[in-house]
Parts: sequence; C-alpha cells; structure tokens
Amino acid sequence: MTIRFGVIGTGAIGREHIRRISQTLSGGEIVAVTDVNQEAAKQVVEQFKLDASVYPDDKSLVAAENVDAVLVTSWGPAHEQSVLAAIEEGKYVFCEKPLAVTAEGCMNIVEAEMKHGKRLVQVGFMRRYDSGYVQLKEAIDNNFIGEPLMIRCAHRNPEVAENYSTDMAVTDTLIHEIDVLHWLINDDYKSVQVVFPKKTKHALDHLQDPQIFTIETESGVSINAEVFVNCKYGYDIQCEVIGEEGIVKLPEFPSIVMRKDAKLSTNVLMDWKDRFIEAYDKEIQDFIDSVRETGEPNGPTAWDGYIAAVTSDACVKAQQTGEKEAIVLKERPAFYSKNTECKTV
Amino acid sequence: MTIRFGVIGTGAIGREHIRRISQTLSGGEIVAVTDVNQEAAKQVVEQFKLDASVYPDDKSLVAAENVDAVLVTSWGPAHEQSVLAAIEEGKYVFCEKPLAVTAEGCMNIVEAEMKHGKRLVQVGFMRRYDSGYVQLKEAIDNNFIGEPLMIRCAHRNPEVAENYSTDMAVTDTLIHEIDVLHWLINDDYKSVQVVFPKKTKHALDHLQDPQIFTIETESGVSINAEVFVNCKYGYDIQCEVIGEEGIVKLPEFPSIVMRKDAKLSTNVLMDWKDRFIEAYDKEIQDFIDSVRETGEPNGPTAWDGYIAAVTSDACVKAQQTGEKEAIVLKERPAFYSKNTECKTV
Amino acid sequence: MTIRFGVIGTGAIGREHIRRISQTLSGGEIVAVTDVNQEAAKQVVEQFKLDASVYPDDKSLVAAENVDAVLVTSWGPAHEQSVLAAIEEGKYVFCEKPLAVTAEGCMNIVEAEMKHGKRLVQVGFMRRYDSGYVQLKEAIDNNFIGEPLMIRCAHRNPEVAENYSTDMAVTDTLIHEIDVLHWLINDDYKSVQVVFPKKTKHALDHLQDPQIFTIETESGVSINAEVFVNCKYGYDIQCEVIGEEGIVKLPEFPSIVMRKDAKLSTNVLMDWKDRFIEAYDKEIQDFIDSVRETGEPNGPTAWDGYIAAVTSDACVKAQQTGEKEAIVLKERPAFYSKNTECKTV
Amino acid sequence: MTIRFGVIGTGAIGREHIRRISQTLSGGEIVAVTDVNQEAAKQVVEQFKLDASVYPDDKSLVAAENVDAVLVTSWGPAHEQSVLAAIEEGKYVFCEKPLAVTAEGCMNIVEAEMKHGKRLVQVGFMRRYDSGYVQLKEAIDNNFIGEPLMIRCAHRNPEVAENYSTDMAVTDTLIHEIDVLHWLINDDYKSVQVVFPKKTKHALDHLQDPQIFTIETESGVSINAEVFVNCKYGYDIQCEVIGEEGIVKLPEFPSIVMRKDAKLSTNVLMDWKDRFIEAYDKEIQDFIDSVRETGEPNGPTAWDGYIAAVTSDACVKAQQTGEKEAIVLKERPAFYSKNTECKTV
Ligand SMILES: [Mg+2]
Ligand SMILES: [Mg+2]
Ligand SMILES: [Mg+2]
Ligand SMILES: [Mg+2]
Repeated sequence: MTIRFGVIGTGAIGREHIRRISQTLSGGEIVAVTDVNQEAAKQVVEQFKLDASVYPDDKSLVAAENVDAVLVTSWGPAHEQSVLAAIEEGKYVFCEKPLAVTAEGCMNIVEAEMKHGKRLVQVGFMRRYDSGYVQLKEAIDNNFIGEPLMIRCAHRNPEVAENYSTDMAVTDTLIHEIDVLHWLINDDYKSVQVVFPKKTKHALDHLQDPQIFTIETESGVSINAEVFVNCKYGYDIQCEVIGEEGIVKLPEFPSIVMRKDAKLSTNVLMDWKDRFIEAYDKEIQDFIDSVRETGEPNGPTAWDGYIAAVTSDACVKAQQTGEKEAIVLKERPAFYSKNTECKTV
Repeated sequence: MTIRFGVIGTGAIGREHIRRISQTLSGGEIVAVTDVNQEAAKQVVEQFKLDASVYPDDKSLVAAENVDAVLVTSWGPAHEQSVLAAIEEGKYVFCEKPLAVTAEGCMNIVEAEMKHGKRLVQVGFMRRYDSGYVQLKEAIDNNFIGEPLMIRCAHRNPEVAENYSTDMAVTDTLIHEIDVLHWLINDDYKSVQVVFPKKTKHALDHLQDPQIFTIETESGVSINAEVFVNCKYGYDIQCEVIGEEGIVKLPEFPSIVMRKDAKLSTNVLMDWKDRFIEAYDKEIQDFIDSVRETGEPNGPTAWDGYIAAVTSDACVKAQQTGEKEAIVLKERPAFYSKNTECKTV
Repeated sequence: MTIRFGVIGTGAIGREHIRRISQTLSGGEIVAVTDVNQEAAKQVVEQFKLDASVYPDDKSLVAAENVDAVLVTSWGPAHEQSVLAAIEEGKYVFCEKPLAVTAEGCMNIVEAEMKHGKRLVQVGFMRRYDSGYVQLKEAIDNNFIGEPLMIRCAHRNPEVAENYSTDMAVTDTLIHEIDVLHWLINDDYKSVQVVFPKKTKHALDHLQDPQIFTIETESGVSINAEVFVNCKYGYDIQCEVIGEEGIVKLPEFPSIVMRKDAKLSTNVLMDWKDRFIEAYDKEIQDFIDSVRETGEPNGPTAWDGYIAAVTSDACVKAQQTGEKEAIVLKERPAFYSKNTECKTV
Repeated sequence: MTIRFGVIGTGAIGREHIRRISQTLSGGEIVAVTDVNQEAAKQVVEQFKLDASVYPDDKSLVAAENVDAVLVTSWGPAHEQSVLAAIEEGKYVFCEKPLAVTAEGCMNIVEAEMKHGKRLVQVGFMRRYDSGYVQLKEAIDNNFIGEPLMIRCAHRNPEVAENYSTDMAVTDTLIHEIDVLHWLINDDYKSVQVVFPKKTKHALDHLQDPQIFTIETESGVSINAEVFVNCKYGYDIQCEVIGEEGIVKLPEFPSIVMRKDAKLSTNVLMDWKDRFIEAYDKEIQDFIDSVRETGEPNGPTAWDGYIAAVTSDACVKAQQTGEKEAIVLKERPAFYSKNTECKTV
C-alpha cells in the first residue's frame, strides 16, 4: 500500500517534502496539491512531473477520496484549520511546525484527535530523528549518565534575515530545542527566565542577539539554552546533558580532518539546510512506514505540538518581562502517553 | 519510469538490496528473482511481499521482458556469466564485487560492454558514495592539499570467521581500498609489496594477521595500507592523504561524546554493516537515478572491476613471494574515461 | 641575587611550595619557616634538608633580616595579619588565596601596599599561569573573537570531603573562576544569581550540588558558571568564551588517544593536583623572576584579592537569597591599573 | 650539593642549556665554559652573568677541579673526544646527540664507561621525557594494548634550510624516532628499507622529501616512519602503536579550540623549539637530580647512543641502495640492562 499524499502549501518547505516523497523515499506518492497561489501549485506539479490534481483549497483536497494523508506546509496561521479538516475526514496529517499558532488552537486539534479515537497527526519536529539526538536519548534511557541534572545547549546561525525579530528567537529557533529536550529527558517544563547578554554588533537594531534561556523542568533539571543567530562562524547545534554519573554530548557534524597552514581543523556548516537533511528524510519515511505498518503515525504528537505552543508563549513572555515565567500545561491525557517512540536506524 | 529489477542470488546481500529497493529507496521495484536454491528465492518473495516472478536461472531472468536491470548478488564465480548474459540482452547490471573472479573474466565484460556501445554495468564498490570519502575527493580535486604524495590507510575488523584465509585479506578486505584509492587520487597502481608484521595471538594458525601493503602508483604516490582483521577493538576504516600543502583524513564515525569513569570517549563501531549503510543506499539510488535520467549508470565501471581484479592478483602474488610485484594494466579505453563521477549528496 | 623566602604555615600547601622552591625552581631558597605547630615547622626543615631557621611566629619571621620575601600558606583567617606585617617591613609577599577572609581585610592590605608606594604582594591565583588560559587570553586580547559576549565554564570534582559545605562551592571552588574570568576579558563583575538544579544523589544531605552561577559583568557579558563537586567522572575544568566573531575554548588536558573495547578515548584527570601543576611552578617562578628583574611582583595583585573577596561575598549571599545580588566594588585605584601582565611561556 | 657544570660548545644549543640550568632548573650552576671561538665563550659568560671561567679547550675544562659534570654541545665530530676526556677524569657527561659520529666512536665511549665501572654518560635524547611518550610507554608497559605489532609515526617540519641533505633526514630528523621507538617497545631493530614517494615541489633539487622508512624489529614489530621536512603546514610529531588489544597514539600538542570562519580548529606548531621545550627542561633536571641522588645519570645511555649510530648508518645505507639493510648490533652488555627508566612527572 502506497501512501497517497495531498500537499497543502507549495512554498519552499512544501516543494522540499514533495521532492523527498517523490524522488527519495519509499512508499509514498503525491496525488494532490493546493496553494493559495493556484499557479504555484500547478507549477509544482509540472516541475516534479507529478501525477497529481490541483485543488482550489485545503477542504476540497482533504476530502479527495484518493488522498490518504495530508502534508500541511502552508504558513503557520493556516495550519489549525487544515489539520482540523483532515481529522474531520479521518485523514492522516503530517503538519510542519507550528501545529497551530496558539496553545488554544493546538488544544482544539488534540481534542479533535482524541474524539476521532486514534492518532492521525504527526508534527514536523525532525530533530528526534537526528542520529546524534537518537544516540543521546539511548544513552539517557539506558541510564548511562544516571539522572539528568543539567542541559547546556546552543542554537547558532551565522546570520538571519532583516525581518527576524526578537520573539522569533523563540518561535523559529528555540522551538526545536523546546520540542527535543523534554523528549530527550522524559520530563516537562516548569518555568523559564531570559537573559540578554551584551548584544553583538552584527545584529540589527531591533533584534536582541544573543539570548540565554534558563528553563527549569518539573523534576528540577536546569536547562541553559543559548540562541545566537548572528554568530558569524557557522550553523552550530550543541547539546550536552550532564547527569549524576557522567555527561553525553552531541557529535560535531562529521567532516574530514585537515592539517594546513598551522591549523588542525574540521569544517563547520554554514547552511542550516545541511544539518538535519537526513532527519527530514527519516521523519517522513517513518510517518509513511508507521502509518502503513501500524495504522498510526509514530513521531511527535499533537500533544507535543501543544507543549511547544505553551512553552513558546511563556518564553516570549519571559523575553518581555525579564522575570521567571511559569510554564503551565494541562494534564497529559492518557491518549498521549509519554515517550512516543520514533523509529531510529 | 520505475526501474524494474531482477535479482540473481537471494543470499544475505541479495536480500539486503531487495529490502533497500523495495522499502527504502525511490524509483525501483523488484519484479524477478532467481537463486540456485529455488526455495530460497520463493521465500524471499514471500518475506518481502514482492510482486515478483521466480525464475529457474539467470539466463531466463535476464531475458524476461519486464526486467530493466539485473542485480547480481550470487557467489563470485557465477558473476561473469550473469553479467555477460545481461549485456547480451542490453539490460543494465548492478554487480556486487567481484565483477569476475579473474582479470580475464573482467576483460570479457569490458569488451562486451564496449561492443554494446554504452555503459550498462555498475560494480558494487560503495565507498565512493561514503560522505567521508566524497569529502576527501572534493578536497583533493579542489587542490586543497596540492599534489598527493602519500596515503596511509587501515582496514580493521574486530575478528573474522574461521574460514577467512590470508589471501582474503586482499580479495575480501583490501579490495575496497584498491577500488577507492585510485579513484580518490585519479591515479593508477604500479607495484605492490607486502610485509607480515608480528602476528597477533588472536589470529588462527592459518592466517597472517596483520598485513601491510606498500603500493606505488604511476605518479609515485606511496600507499601504506594496513589490513588487520582481528584487531579486537572495533571495525575501523582509516584513510589519510598527505599532499604537498596539507593533509586530509577521513572523519571518525559520528558518535556522541561521553565523559564517564575518568574517560572522555566516543564509540567505535563493532559491526562493519553499520559503517557504510548510507553508502549502500546511495550507490543503488544513484544507479536507479542515473539510469532513469541519463540512460547510463554513473558509478564504478566494468573497467574499475578490471583494475580491482588485476591489482588483487598482484597483491596475492606479493603475499606469496615477499617481493615487489608489478601491477600491469592494459591501456585504458577511451570508453572508460578517468574520473567517473559518482553522484554525491 | 637569590630570593630568600620565609614561609608562614607548613601545612600541605606550604610544604608543596617549599619543595617547589628548593627542588624545582631557580633563583629562590628557603631561609626561614614558622607554623603555629612549631614541631611541624622543625620537621619540614629536616624533611627538605633546608638551611633555614624556625621562628616562633609570623612577626619575628617577617622581621628577620635575611628574609627577602614571605610565603603565606597558613590558614585563611591568619593571612591578613601576616601580609600586613610583611608590608610593614617592606618585604615581598606571595599569599595563597584568600588574601583575607573579608573584603575589609583585603582593603586594609590594598591601602597598606599603596601607602608603601610600590607593589609587594602577589596572590596565589595560579590559573593565570596555565597555558590554556594564557592562550585564551592571547586570543581575546588579539581580538580573535571580537567582543566577548558570553562565557560558559564548569568546575567539576569527582567528589569532595564530608566537611565541604554549600558556601565552599564559592569560597573554595568558584573562587578560581572568579579570579581568572575578569582577568580573561578585562572586565568587572556587576551581579550574580544562583540556581540549584536537581541535586545529585552523590552529594551529602547538607550540600547543594551542582550549582549554577549566572554572573553579569559591567560591559554586559553573561557568565554561566557551573560548580559540580560530586560529578564522579573526573576533575574537569571547562571554559569557553563566545564572542562576536567566534569562540575559543580551553583545551582538554593532554592525554594519549586510545582505541580499545569499542571506544576511542582519552584520559580525564581524577586528581585536581595534576591539573595545574605547571601553573603552580610558573606562578612562583614568575614571582621570583619579576621581583629579581623589576623589583615588583607581576602576578595577581592585592586588588585582585579584594575583587575576589567582594565577589565571593555576593555569590554566597546569592546562594542564600535566590535573588540577583549586586557585586559592588570600590573604584579601582590607579595604583592597580587593569591588566597586570603575568609572564607566559 | 649543587652540580657544577662545564659547558663545551657555546652555540645555540649550548646557550639554551646554559639559560636552562642558570635560570629555570634547580640544583645546577655553570662554572666553566669553552668554545673553539673563545670570544663566543666569553660573551656567553657576560650575557648570562655567569660566575664561570673560560677555558681554552675541552681537556682543560674537563680537568678543572670545580667541574662536576660536562655538557657537550659542540659540533658532532668533536663529541667523542670530549666525552672520552670526561670519562677519563671521572666526570659526569650530558652529551647532545650524536654521542659520536661513528658506531665505532660510540663503542669507544661504551668501553671507556664500562671500564670506569659506573654510569657517567647521558645522551640528549629528550623525547623520553616528553609527557606524551611517557604516557605511551606506561600504557605499553602496563600491557594496555597487549603485544605491540606495528608502529606508525611521522616527523614533519614545515621547511628546512638549504644545506639540509637527504642523509640528514636520518641523522638529524629520524634519529629521534630511532632513539625513542626501541625504548618505547623494549625491542631492538633488525632491518630497514627506504621508499622515496613522489617528491614535493617544495623540496630543493638535491633533497629527497618525503621519505618512508620501514623498520623491522627483532620481535617482528613493523615500523612505518615518515620523514617529511617540507610539509608546509607545521611541525608535527605523530606516533601510534598498534597492539593485539588496542592502539595508543601521541596527543596533539595542546591548543585552545577555536570556532571561526566555518572551521573548528586547533593550532599546529610551526616552530620545533616549542614542541619539546618541557622535555628539554626535564631531561637536564633529571640528569641533575639522579646524579645528586643516586650518583648516576638516569636517562639515555652510551649504549643508546651506540644503537642510534648503528641504526642511523643502516638507514643511510638503505637510502642509497634501495634494498632492505640489516641493523646489526653487538650483544648488549649487562652493564646496560634494557629499560633504563627515565624519571617522569
Ligand atoms: Mg520539520
Ligand atoms: Mg558493495
Ligand atoms: Mg594557588
Ligand atoms: Mg636533546
């Protein structure tokens, strides 16, 4: 059984996933597309030589009989409606982050999915499929470091576009740490406080950069998360978990080792697209495989999308107040038991 | 256009490639299988739920109209006949190493392919698709280290089976270095000499282990290649190219970094299957993609298979004589211009 | 001219410095010793075969005509009196940390030294002589990373004695970071806040461990300093300075690289005494050399001792209040111009 | 008891050791100097403000009553005579390499020392005092890697002076590996063969560079030693010992870790003088300490000087013949039992 996808939103990320499903992965095909710009949708069909219909809107695409699963890659504010429409039709949904732009919107989806009675939704948090994070999680779950006590992480970009604003350090950047860290240590967040260190001269006037988030979890783990999006030297994702018995840390991105001009060196990525390219492949392949094999997706859930929304809101508030802000989640429904297992190589 | 594969030989490697094509890669499907053990062939069809016919022998499979490409994964001595049969029918062939068990057999294939008039054959030397080797080659081709002068490499296994013999250090192990190194530095081999260092106590009586091969190239590069197949500590592939301006070296296999028990450490693989798993995926995907897009495979050629056979013969002879043995290749036909480019990520 | 030392306090550190001066370094000799335990003082003379007189107390030792310089290695509360006595006599003083147990005591020494009119005092903050920190400072001073924006550091011990208390995380442990970091970035401290993460089970009831100090500097640099004294895995000093153009980090302690048992590893120290052994040698040799060559010591000043005392007080207060506490220094006298240069190899 | 040194030869190395003994180390002083250039000798006395007499020649210096130990830092051909003169007078000798320029000359010294009846001579092979080699030796002696089977090493300089000739790759460069490797694995050399790889364009016409030496030991260990003295990128000393159970390798020279301009890098030394600066200090300090404490030097012996001379001769012959050349040592006298222990930190 091949999974027949309908794609809502044919911008950059949409096209990237279309290429992935039609040219790289196994077991999926694109049978329907739509976009607010209908011309763009048609061009994509041509560009990728798809055997796919172009639909006028998300509702009609979702309703198409030959669509098994919906890929939501439109702009954020449109996600909630499309995901709810898909659930209504009992279709699977792979939704790029954010699941919805408000915590309330996420809860609407959570409730719709629970009402439907089985999992349909996967959120596009790809880091859980990155081999480095997978190794970290295995080490932690195998008790290699004992109880986690502290996490130090950093999310650094060489530079950002002009329209990147201070709150986007949370909603576009830290959001990936927000998703992956609670999964990594099987914990929930409790509070967050933000410090703005001396600002780099490479940041525009309107942007605080770097920023440091101190996040406390329910069990007392202290997370120190740096966001630095004009760091100049590279795209660099660091994560180190410090436990009672030892420490585990993400590997550097693999590079040949060079000796030249009085330096022993390896390459640091400059383009974020290269960093998680395999993780993107794996998240969609896992979505396809688990739907085919178990009838439910296996990756980040609608509840994870809700956690990200609530935490993200608290982080933005903490940016504004300078105070320690509480991160208050509703009680986790049994439907979303902790530790959804992503398939790993 | 989906490439429809017929598989000759459904042993371990054959099944692995069948899984790959049917469950992981894009653009291929398995439509035919055969094996000297017909029961085994039938079981594979069942195991992987293939929509594939079981043929009595390679000839009939090759001739089947719906077979676009043949995957030769039988035992070595049978390869030549199957590949020749495929060329005869004008079918594409992906043949696992060795292309043929003799240099003469390889030349038969080379001549048949040239007579056919376009490339049909790709040999399963997967290292050219490994991201580490690809980075090395880019650095060398971009003149980052100037002229290569020396190579140091090592091929180490934790242990080998009882039936592993001294010559298999060449034909099963060093063979991968033999293929990848001349490609890496765009050169041809000229001579080889072998040294047997003190033997490890972990090797059985009949086996020389470790062994060191000193290979000289036409341009004068000196290659020092260690084969050590009872090294105990891990499966470890090392390669370092020393040039006039600097040095480049393969990355270690990526691992989380651990601090525990007075050690700072990373993991070394124990199982060779994990080391090149992505390269195996990429070599077959590239075979599929290039056949679809250009009508010819893009990877290691029949001529590369011939180079491997001639070089392998000289290495085995050098094991026996202890002398420096010449590596004498026929002139490279224009048909096989140097520097076949493998597609890289 | 050989520098003739009188040693006040012949406990472990005193004996270590006596060994250093008499058996390893050049240009110094021990001519006088005293200890509250007179027997201990006598034994040291014997043990090291010193040609040295035993004095009944610090005052008489300081006054001895053949004493050029005083080494204060008694317990902390006695330091102030001995240093003041030495200044009174116009003798040079190398005083182990703390210079005095209160900020007021440090100021008494600062004022006495300024009144004397030239530098006599060096405080035993040895990290400024560590080759790793020296390389960091050179890189920063040469503007290699542009303006420093953040520092991440960690001070980890495998375990501590039973009597180690929560405030000693500041006064015994963090005190070294307190001294070295403002020197490293040529800045002054402004405030400190403390977080107590989940406590390790390896810490005794009375001890908070680990602890995280967030220190802000006058120029806005944000310092994240972890103290973790029951980390089990080793004695580990980490320091990373993140600037506008790049990052510099301390080297790991040099170790052979091992491949064994599926691990690629290096050794982590277990004993703190091994970490800075060369820095201890260099700080005393520099004291001797600079006094001989320039008539003044060159290392950490009485003012640095005062900074350490004030900062340490604020850190302990922050442990108790959980609030952000100000670090308020008096104005730096011109006598103690910033950036005292330690001699480096 | 201070060791009173007489120095024969006040060139660069002589002055360096004079500085070391008079300004850095403990327990030695310079009381006599001589040089074929008497003016140079006088200048050195002035430069270092030594309380030392200038002697007209080595014989008179050696005979001076207040000279306890002789430091031979003249040019190589003069060493033998000075060392023999010192032994004649029963004086200790620290002789820079080579002990003598011929194997015969070394044997003359060996015989003179044995006749004298106790060890007087230490040869200036400083690598045995390098902390990296010391760690390697400890690991090997503690059986961490089981039986050593192979060694890979490299000795690389960024460039050499015009007068550096092909044989100097042995006598000036490889000579350090020759000394340290047999000590490292407690073995003796048996044969050597040389390969000249493609020559770097950065070497002058008269010089073969790089060169690879394959040395076999009595127990069968195979040593692959690269000498590359125009490698451009840095001064780099590599050594890796491969054993039955694992591998140990020298650490890189410690450097801060930098992230900048898309590179993660550490510094490689350009100046060989920085690499072993601590080892030079330690070899002389150990000479002083062991003579003071045990009445005999503790470091590399006259017999080690003889081994170096015989091996060096065979290596130069192998450069000329291209053949495998035997390394034939006389039987080791009991007087020079294997495994002289250098003192280590
Ligand atoms: Mg995603
Ligand atoms: Mg293969
Ligand atoms: Mg100190
Ligand atoms: Mg020397």
